[in-house]
Amino acid sequence: MLELKHLPISSFNENIAYIHRDCPVYKIDNIKTMTRIEIHGGESPVYAFLQIVDSGKIIRPGELGLNTEAFRQIGLPEGSKVTLTLTPPAQSMVSVRRKIAGNILSDEEYADIVADIVARRYSNMDIASFLVATGSFVTPGELLSLTEALRGDRVVDWGSEEIVADHYCLGDVPGNKTDLILTAIVAAYGLPIPKTAAHSLSGVSGAADTMAVLANVETDVRSLKKQVLEKRGAIVALDGLEIAAADKIISAVEQQNGLATLERSVSSFLAVKMAAGITHLLVDIPVGPRARVRSTQEAMRLRKLIEYVGDMMEISVDVVITDGSEPIGSGIGAALEARDVMKVLKNKEDAPEDLKEKSLFLAGRILEFDPKLRGGQGYVVARELLKSGKALDAMEQIIKAQGKVKDPVQLGHLTRDVVAETDGTVKRIDNGFITRLTVLCGGGQYPGAGVDLFRKTGDKVTAGDILYRIYSCNENDFAFAGTVLESGKNGFEIGR
Amino acid sequence: MLELKHLPISSFNENIAYIHRDCPVYKIDNIKTMTRIEIHGGESPVYAFLQIVDSGKIIRPGELGLNTEAFRQIGLPEGSKVTLTLTPPAQSMVSVRRKIAGNILSDEEYADIVADIVARRYSNMDIASFLVATGSFVTPGELLSLTEALRGDRVVDWGSEEIVADHYCLGDVPGNKTDLILTAIVAAYGLPIPKTAAHSLSGVSGAADTMAVLANVETDVRSLKKQVLEKRGAIVALDGLEIAAADKIISAVEQQNGLATLERSVSSFLAVKMAAGITHLLVDIPVGPRARVRSTQEAMRLRKLIEYVGDMMEISVDVVITDGSEPIGSGIGAALEARDVMKVLKNKEDAPEDLKEKSLFLAGRILEFDPKLRGGQGYVVARELLKSGKALDAMEQIIKAQGKVKDPVQLGHLTRDVVAETDGTVKRIDNGFITRLTVLCGGGQYPGAGVDLFRKTGDKVTAGDILYRIYSCNENDFAFAGTVLESGKNGFEIGR
Repeated sequence: MLELKHLPISSFNENIAYIHRDCPVYKIDNIKTMTRIEIHGGESPVYAFLQIVDSGKIIRPGELGLNTEAFRQIGLPEGSKVTLTLTPPAQSMVSVRRKIAGNILSDEEYADIVADIVARRYSNMDIASFLVATGSFVTPGELLSLTEALRGDRVVDWGSEEIVADHYCLGDVPGNKTDLILTAIVAAYGLPIPKTAAHSLSGVSGAADTMAVLANVETDVRSLKKQVLEKRGAIVALDGLEIAAADKIISAVEQQNGLATLERSVSSFLAVKMAAGITHLLVDIPVGPRARVRSTQEAMRLRKLIEYVGDMMEISVDVVITDGSEPIGSGIGAALEARDVMKVLKNKEDAPEDLKEKSLFLAGRILEFDPKLRGGQGYVVARELLKSGKALDAMEQIIKAQGKVKDPVQLGHLTRDVVAETDGTVKRIDNGFITRLTVLCGGGQYPGAGVDLFRKTGDKVTAGDILYRIYSCNENDFAFAGTVLESGKNGFEIGR
Repeated sequence: MLELKHLPISSFNENIAYIHRDCPVYKIDNIKTMTRIEIHGGESPVYAFLQIVDSGKIIRPGELGLNTEAFRQIGLPEGSKVTLTLTPPAQSMVSVRRKIAGNILSDEEYADIVADIVARRYSNMDIASFLVATGSFVTPGELLSLTEALRGDRVVDWGSEEIVADHYCLGDVPGNKTDLILTAIVAAYGLPIPKTAAHSLSGVSGAADTMAVLANVETDVRSLKKQVLEKRGAIVALDGLEIAAADKIISAVEQQNGLATLERSVSSFLAVKMAAGITHLLVDIPVGPRARVRSTQEAMRLRKLIEYVGDMMEISVDVVITDGSEPIGSGIGAALEARDVMKVLKNKEDAPEDLKEKSLFLAGRILEFDPKLRGGQGYVVARELLKSGKALDAMEQIIKAQGKVKDPVQLGHLTRDVVAETDGTVKRIDNGFITRLTVLCGGGQYPGAGVDLFRKTGDKVTAGDILYRIYSCNENDFAFAGTVLESGKNGFEIGR
């Protein structure tokens, strides 16, 4: 019997248990490598990975320490008596090994793997092994099995709503925050749209980060339902919602090792949207030399895959392939993007035209999910909702319902302008360069950091014209970004 | 600037840095997932993974905590001023992604990956990703590149010795501690044999664990060299030797996720033996339905692979394929195996014949590495060295040189006999069952735990005869083993 203690350490998705080297229960001398244990005493056993402590100030010999993740899971007060046993790797790792060996796994095998991941029986490295094993090759049938397992049993119930819509963009195009605008338009039309958005994982702003500049985005399923049933729309962070637990754990590992495949992304967003109770989903696949999807052929292959899984799981899916060769909008970084979004919704003259047009196009496709709307009318209706200010009204109601941000985010106080060196026309803007620059400026870490584009492809420039301005919130990031700019490249190709 | 603090926590091969949630330098609110940092202030930057602490008792806001692994690496006293920067994933992860995509990696790519692993730029999950990626397919050329990278630059120098021999067994056969016997024979003959042995990873006794029952096995390269040059033999744990650092890190991950492939094992043991300066290596591939290698065809494929890599790296390799269908010797578990080894060396009448014969066969093959020995004479010379007591003398000298264990290990005080239920002949003993039972008894954790076989295949039995006895050191393990035995199986097939 050991006495439970909470060591308030956050280890990002891994349960860790700490015991003293002189623990009377476990002979540590014999522990040579990372060891899995099963902790008994709570309602159900909690799995954790053992670490050894050599200081009584952190853990005394008769105590078992749990990090914040594991302590929350065991649900017992400090001082409770617990026991522990060594536990072998999860049984479903056999299936992971089968997958590595090139086999096709069954529905049950995917369900077992996902169940073990949710129970925290997989270490992060076990999850990475699973991801890499499924990364080289999965059949469409396997992707369906995985998606069903990831969706899980908990699906948000929207009661009598016949259509619950959302949109997903298979990303990596800088700017491109159509999400917020189309949500406002669709809500203004009256279709319920509970947009679940991601926080930045790649270092540039996620839609949840951009929305967080305007309103609170952290919520739970109950509040989300209430808001959408009343206001028809919401833009919230997925994190706090009690759905698709396995997908969140897996995504954290993917983020960490940068090994997400397109197939896994498909299973991930379909699972999450279905767990959120979405019935009609618009998927945007931007194609460009520096986007995630680099050819129309690849986009078409993905479209078929998304349609197949969507059809089998009985969700209406509309997949559009768009131009992802350029940043969309002017600002890249949460505060700058939020500014662009509000400019579009307010019908400002200097609103970025490309962001507005793409948002209208996508919103129009979602509106056409409504059987009452005549085919081809979606775009026109969307434009009317935007022009009339109804979309802005809807957005303001959504912001109010979620909790408006009181102190507006200030743009970074450190700025630098990058200017054209020659006269000419902008031929190309390098998405990859602009994304990297935004990350270096501190975008994704600081909402006020980012890159503001003054010129886009096709614009005429004269030597000395500002191409873009960078914003940083601290000297460190600012210096980093400066180093890259002094390397001679600026991401713009200017020609005749 | 943060103040360095050592948090005496062992995390098994991963560098962990701890900062307080109110750290004045890093805005933790923005850290959503596991984050890599680079710590500056020591001789070279140290890479670590960040964890967040919510208690000033563990880490104060102005401090940076390092776990034992990272603290040792940075080499600075507590209280030193350090800075930290966020750091992207290791550059060589690009090659890991290329491997996942099915590409063949170059020499340089393997060298870069291994260098990043040694620098601790890979998290355990990055290492797992690399293992799985190379697990599905590597060319012989890639295996050579990997082996060269794993061997590293530090190779033990044996001066004027022309032959430095060792043996490696591609395991998973219970018992089978020929290692200790053949080392004694080869040392008695006069060929230097610095046997680097593993501690148990799979839960049953490794050769280092079995030797540890008799003598100290923890040493460093300097002491190992001195001993082998004087006594001609040593049997030591690989752990403490300052060689093949990358391989140790990778092996710990493999152990954790159970994903070792045969190819990786080949690169691992060849790299370690070559880093130990071995010039002549005997490799034993046991084949059996429950051994690691299950068919002669598979063994032959491995033999070719070992010979190819060995030849290219200019080490003399002799590969033998042996029968791995049965346990070798009587005892399984460190103390029982050590007992069998000493029985063979002491020419006891009840010494297990199969262990003796296999050891003589292998020792004979090693002796024939000596050009002075006439072909085919190895076995005869080995038998003579054993029979005359010279091998025992050699073993006693090795034990003395390493430091004899003063208090002999006691066999577990909890025992249970498993008896034959019918008359007949033992047709088959299930290696897998016996291994599992040994693990459950506590073998690998407690040297005194294990299974002692009273009957082997071919033996006649009468109902009621003891087939084997299990030994446990604590009630928990004993009860576990009992549960399995009460399931109706006992691992023995008895027929007419």
